[in-house]
Amino acid sequence: MDVTRVLAEYVAESRFVDLPEEVRREGARSLLNWVGCAVGGSRHDTVDRAIAALRPFSGAAQASVLGRSERLDILHAALMNGISSHVFDFDDTHLQTLIHPSGPVASAILALAEYRPVSGPEFVHAFILGVEVECRIGAAVFPAHYDVGWHITGTAGVFGAAAAAGKLLGLDPQQIAWAFGIAGTQSSGFREMFGTMCKSFHPGRAAQNGLTAACLAQQNFTSSERVLEAPRGFAQVMSASHDFSRIAEGLGQSFAIALNSYKPYACGLVIHPAIDGCVQLRNEYGLKAADIERIELRVHPLVLELTGKTAPQVGLEGKFSVYHSAAVAIIYGRAGEHEYSDDCVLDPQVIALRSKVEAVVQSGIRKDEAVIAITLADRRILEKHIRHAIGSIERPMSDADLEAKFRGLAEGVLPPDQVERLIETCWNIEALQDAAEIARGAQA
Amino acid sequence: MDVTRVLAEYVAESRFVDLPEEVRREGARSLLNWVGCAVGGSRHDTVDRAIAALRPFSGAAQASVLGRSERLDILHAALMNGISSHVFDFDDTHLQTLIHPSGPVASAILALAEYRPVSGPEFVHAFILGVEVECRIGAAVFPAHYDVGWHITGTAGVFGAAAAAGKLLGLDPQQIAWAFGIAGTQSSGFREMFGTMCKSFHPGRAAQNGLTAACLAQQNFTSSERVLEAPRGFAQVMSASHDFSRIAEGLGQSFAIALNSYKPYACGLVIHPAIDGCVQLRNEYGLKAADIERIELRVHPLVLELTGKTAPQVGLEGKFSVYHSAAVAIIYGRAGEHEYSDDCVLDPQVIALRSKVEAVVQSGIRKDEAVIAITLADRRILEKHIRHAIGSIERPMSDADLEAKFRGLAEGVLPPDQVERLIETCWNIEALQDAAEIARGAQA
Repeated sequence: MDVTRVLAEYVAESRFVDLPEEVRREGARSLLNWVGCAVGGSRHDTVDRAIAALRPFSGAAQASVLGRSERLDILHAALMNGISSHVFDFDDTHLQTLIHPSGPVASAILALAEYRPVSGPEFVHAFILGVEVECRIGAAVFPAHYDVGWHITGTAGVFGAAAAAGKLLGLDPQQIAWAFGIAGTQSSGFREMFGTMCKSFHPGRAAQNGLTAACLAQQNFTSSERVLEAPRGFAQVMSASHDFSRIAEGLGQSFAIALNSYKPYACGLVIHPAIDGCVQLRNEYGLKAADIERIELRVHPLVLELTGKTAPQVGLEGKFSVYHSAAVAIIYGRAGEHEYSDDCVLDPQVIALRSKVEAVVQSGIRKDEAVIAITLADRRILEKHIRHAIGSIERPMSDADLEAKFRGLAEGVLPPDQVERLIETCWNIEALQDAAEIARGAQA
Repeated sequence: MDVTRVLAEYVAESRFVDLPEEVRREGARSLLNWVGCAVGGSRHDTVDRAIAALRPFSGAAQASVLGRSERLDILHAALMNGISSHVFDFDDTHLQTLIHPSGPVASAILALAEYRPVSGPEFVHAFILGVEVECRIGAAVFPAHYDVGWHITGTAGVFGAAAAAGKLLGLDPQQIAWAFGIAGTQSSGFREMFGTMCKSFHPGRAAQNGLTAACLAQQNFTSSERVLEAPRGFAQVMSASHDFSRIAEGLGQSFAIALNSYKPYACGLVIHPAIDGCVQLRNEYGLKAADIERIELRVHPLVLELTGKTAPQVGLEGKFSVYHSAAVAIIYGRAGEHEYSDDCVLDPQVIALRSKVEAVVQSGIRKDEAVIAITLADRRILEKHIRHAIGSIERPMSDADLEAKFRGLAEGVLPPDQVERLIETCWNIEALQDAAEIARGAQA
């Protein structure tokens, strides 16, 4: 089955008008979420160190590093934006493949759009196609490929970046197949890197390498035209099993981005139902920490296994504490990156409240489910059963939720009025004459 | 077994004075051979297209592209020199692992040396260490890793480039371990790419990515410190079997570069014995094409299987013709890249002589063996039994052979007097105050 050619032809021939309205809308939502994550992560040490190391070798000031003042050549800008958008592990997830789809794709083409202007619709179209390509390729090798140790956001993401950049460069099917080949032969990234700066390096490098692949293919730099299916190509070399029907079936009819999901909270998905319930009770009853005697969480066993840390000492440990997470949910009504800062985990008010949190495993409860029972000082008990946590496919974040998340991320990075304009620009992507307005609007 | 740490400490602590004289000498020979290959390949379409695609994104003119006039930032220069040095498949081979060791390592550190001056001894030292690292890591996963489809020059080469660049940057053991991690998580390159421009892209990208890894590690960009041995690291993810003793045993005592080999002829190793015999008979008897009635080659079966093309029409096909190869060996006394040009395969004199060549399989003959019997017009028969072809470990190319190969490669790229000076500079590497003299001396 010549899936490389099938996919290349689809990318080359797809037209914007063929995209359903709701798919385009989800493209804009993914983009908004990605810009927020990139701006939010832009001041992280990981980005600082990468820029310190590589800026001396950057070309002309062609493209923005979102949330910062540096401008780099498009390849380095793609790398940096890919890093910053994933550094908080707060970006989007295609749940079927565990790919974080926007990072590799958007980082590549937003940089390219600053160098070679394209309209908003062209941009969204390329973005949706890039996500489609990486998720289909990922689905063809998932889970064997992931299980053996590949970080699929990097390994599949590079194809998505190449597809999207190739589309914007107007490559023909042969060139797109070459771009897939050049991208695929750079496919890399070990899960061993989780917990180090290299984790977010993966989507950054995927963006940069996929963009490089498209630029090379544009100059007729040749490659295999069968990188996906060849005996010594991607699927056979990098996965113990594969199913190519996942690449070709329903192409142009079903869209991966329609199944994209966004994290409302800056921590592992497993704590999200508990946080969700605490936030809802807080908002419904106007709860304050002082009103509360006890918080009981009935949760899936994985919650205690993965996030059972009772006394976190640094911000990162807070992400592995369901107790801390429930406490900040009550106090701040959110659990963004700021609520997992070093300061916040050492805040006496937070410490006091988290000592009142108990988590118990309840049999039969699903991973995206929780029951929260809050006992007030006046002995009243407030209960909330979260059947599907906010951010799940069944209960997606609303546009307003996404905006609130964006504001939380951009807080302290960009001035509030700039943040509001940037949110507006993202929503209006289909009306933009020049998609690079997003990048310029996100510069510090 | 914590082999990543062992290797990192070795690289950090190794001293130039610990290197045996003959190892340093082989370092100079490898370097000379590599510079010749890079200069020779520098005008190839593959390099032209890569430069056309990526030059717009290059940083300052920090480093030379050997054999050309362009100067690029060190990361792009490393890429281009890695491509050009492998594009003819004429570079060196570590036979035990099939790694072409110089490309990834020398390309990375020669570019770095132009940016951050180092002495000749420091340069040779780093070069030898880089080759050691890539060949030991390659040996630990060979042959399973190669057999499944990885192009080991790319996948192992990136570690060698990181080691050598890390040494020149003065990284400490922890930083070198991080550099290995950053390099390893970029390890990539499929054998599916053989026959396309992506094949030589692999050592180029390995050089560039390894150099990037060292620069990032210098800024304390963190990574796993166990990339080689971790359950989701290099050896386990990228190979069905591995033997870590190949990494640690005899470290500092035996040196991979001592087993490096160089190709005398610009074609597959399997035809080398036949060419060798023809060149020797030609030189011993002063043979001319007109003297010859018939050339009989008694060869290993693989010769006819792989190189049985009787009437090549383009240069590349000539490389797969033992008949063409024998004819040019007699006429020109060599079989370099020029003898595999389109013009040469269509030359009437070459065509006439190759029609007189017969190749027959002789049972029991080894792959590096051949018997050549030339029948002259006067009915005399001249015979030569090649037991080990020139370029094999048993019969290495002499320094003079390497120089002659260099001159053949550089012919038409650099002026003859510059070529002689450059050869001299390579031999004198240990006396250089500034190793970058090699790069400057190789600029067009």
